[in-house]
Amino acid sequence: MALIVHKYGGTSMGSTERIRNVAKRVAKWARAGHQMVVVPSAMSGETNRLLALAKEVAPAKADDAYHRELDQLAATGEQASSALLAIALQAEGLAAVSYSGWQVAIKTNSAFTKARIESIDDARVRADLAAGKVVIITGFQGVDDAGNVTTLGRGGSDTSAVAVAAAMKAQECLIYTDVDGVYTTDPRVVPEARRLKTVSFEEMLEMASMGSKVLQIRSVEFAGKYKVPLRVLSSFTPWDIDIHEEAKSGTLISFEEDENMEQAVVSGIAFNRDEAKISLLGVPDTPGIAYQILGAVAQANIEVDMIIQNVSHEGKTDFSFTVHRNDFARATDLLKSDIAPKLGARQVIGDAKICKVSIVGIGMRSHVGVASKMFRALSEEGINIQMISTSEIKTSVVIDEKYMELAVRALHKAFDLDQQPA
Amino acid sequence: MALIVHKYGGTSMGSTERIRNVAKRVAKWARAGHQMVVVPSAMSGETNRLLALAKEVAPAKADDAYHRELDQLAATGEQASSALLAIALQAEGLAAVSYSGWQVAIKTNSAFTKARIESIDDARVRADLAAGKVVIITGFQGVDDAGNVTTLGRGGSDTSAVAVAAAMKAQECLIYTDVDGVYTTDPRVVPEARRLKTVSFEEMLEMASMGSKVLQIRSVEFAGKYKVPLRVLSSFTPWDIDIHEEAKSGTLISFEEDENMEQAVVSGIAFNRDEAKISLLGVPDTPGIAYQILGAVAQANIEVDMIIQNVSHEGKTDFSFTVHRNDFARATDLLKSDIAPKLGARQVIGDAKICKVSIVGIGMRSHVGVASKMFRALSEEGINIQMISTSEIKTSVVIDEKYMELAVRALHKAFDLDQQPA
Repeated sequence: MALIVHKYGGTSMGSTERIRNVAKRVAKWARAGHQMVVVPSAMSGETNRLLALAKEVAPAKADDAYHRELDQLAATGEQASSALLAIALQAEGLAAVSYSGWQVAIKTNSAFTKARIESIDDARVRADLAAGKVVIITGFQGVDDAGNVTTLGRGGSDTSAVAVAAAMKAQECLIYTDVDGVYTTDPRVVPEARRLKTVSFEEMLEMASMGSKVLQIRSVEFAGKYKVPLRVLSSFTPWDIDIHEEAKSGTLISFEEDENMEQAVVSGIAFNRDEAKISLLGVPDTPGIAYQILGAVAQANIEVDMIIQNVSHEGKTDFSFTVHRNDFARATDLLKSDIAPKLGARQVIGDAKICKVSIVGIGMRSHVGVASKMFRALSEEGINIQMISTSEIKTSVVIDEKYMELAVRALHKAFDLDQQPA
Repeated sequence: MALIVHKYGGTSMGSTERIRNVAKRVAKWARAGHQMVVVPSAMSGETNRLLALAKEVAPAKADDAYHRELDQLAATGEQASSALLAIALQAEGLAAVSYSGWQVAIKTNSAFTKARIESIDDARVRADLAAGKVVIITGFQGVDDAGNVTTLGRGGSDTSAVAVAAAMKAQECLIYTDVDGVYTTDPRVVPEARRLKTVSFEEMLEMASMGSKVLQIRSVEFAGKYKVPLRVLSSFTPWDIDIHEEAKSGTLISFEEDENMEQAVVSGIAFNRDEAKISLLGVPDTPGIAYQILGAVAQANIEVDMIIQNVSHEGKTDFSFTVHRNDFARATDLLKSDIAPKLGARQVIGDAKICKVSIVGIGMRSHVGVASKMFRALSEEGINIQMISTSEIKTSVVIDEKYMELAVRALHKAFDLDQQPA
């Protein structure tokens, strides 16, 4: 008997048959006495179809010029899927109503295609819930102060669901997706990967940012900020499984550090090969050097992930950082043609064939020797570490991309992640 | 240098290539110095696709239960096509913005799936026009006082365009469609049918109601009420034809009876075979009998077109009317099982194999003998007239449907409609 938010991804809404299954599942929850708010994505493929049409009507120009209209266009996908879900729920005999972002209203800033939610007016939704209705709210979109439709960017429906759950003070936000939870690492790389029953918010944040595609990182940040309990679970279980069993399935992203969670030092291994590394060698080690390098990079709208600067040697130092592979050529050009000559750096070198592998765990905070155990496991496999970066609950290394799977498997084993924690 | 409204139907918006052609045509008008408001339909097939999805998620129930959500769903078609047109215009180098009904706002009542426009706020649109933008407004939809999305029913985009033109006091509303104007009759039936350069509002109304599918009848009523000059023209001429030539093409629906229009006694022949006739024979001729029959029919939500009651004979009369063929069985059942026994009528007979043929002309008002000329032409072809109904500018007959084409051709010739009026 609580207010619950369900979020269903595009695959879960991927056909009219699946939408009917979602309706049956939501109806089960509503009939168990819960007040239900549902946030669906567009039917899978729909957003791509719409954006492909836009490309066809304006093939020559960059997308940027059309941002307002692209949002007006793309937002129709969720409006349609939400209305279809309302109809399916009504066909199940439930009172249901669907709202687009502007109807709630979900207010955002005006950053078209990547807007941020600023406020949610919950009056209309509360009145409907009190009247016994299931309320469906389009994911992915909102409205700015001038009444323009905005979208939150790819994967924004997760953020919508969490924001709605926060505004409504929901007991839990259930993110239904095509995987059944958060794993210690990608099971396609490590068959022994194990589903985590709980994971801390901080760990999830590190994993999401490392490219574990289960949840959009912004939604995790949002959940952290507003302390929304999040659960990731599968929409492909039969809709009529026992509701108590379903309520405990998947992975709970928790904000309370319970004893159970403390027992695992490392919770998971994250990895990605989307990055490239660039180094400026022989830079004069003077104050403000980091700013002069990264300020220029940021001005070129290139995002930087890892940043490494070691102690200097005879007044010179080496400065390294990683960028997205798509920005590698542009960043290298910028350094060679502009920054390196200005600073009197000796050389610019780079490598796109790298990967980043991280161990993530809230228990690392209170355990010494975790990083050294990681480095030993890699060295035993003969894997050379090119860069190291650490945070409170994560240690990341950059290695040759050809060793990625080997490194992930070795670390998964070294930290006993295939074993249920005691 | 005037404010012009263009409306493009679903076929004209039927592909991204066609949308780009529409953009080029609108750009030509804008560059000639006109302030342009464009009202597009959804891409052809899109509304049907969406409603078919609704049928799939709720196959068992009647549509009526879902009206609010069907509108929420169907309205996405025009929002998408409007955004695509804005993008195409921007790609042509024009400033353009698209608005959904609620963004303008186009206020309607809450009669979902068949809402009526109540008011249009033109402030936002005027500001954009003053700033040199082309404004695109979704056809077919609006928003009610409670913020629900409403649609105007099939063909509602014509009405949207006319309503916008009326609110903005546009100089002319150009309805671009897949035919090049209004004809004296259907050219598929009479190859000699001639395009009318002008037609009066009243004539157009009679023709629209007779099933000439060029314009939705409600849009013509709206145009009449607010004196919006309407022009029906083809969107399949090359987009770069001379603008002065284009501005005079098609058919102008005029509100001023000029001398030229008076010269044609009959402007066109309309026909349809969507109706069926039903008669109650031997009804006691007492006051209120018509209400007792038609009141019950209306309560069953069956629309009635022609109604005929002749003088009574020995206190008994025969009462006939026509209904849509889809309602024929239901209406006949209702009369036989309920109304006829109650009234003591002798018999209920009906015939679905009929058609209605009408001559329409504003000149009929001042010319005697027009109806008799019609009846003579039909009799010369051996066609028996089953029912007759007249209005100020129309005479309709019901005949056996097998004579429809023959009757239309004979009347087209008898009234010299293949000749340009002197």
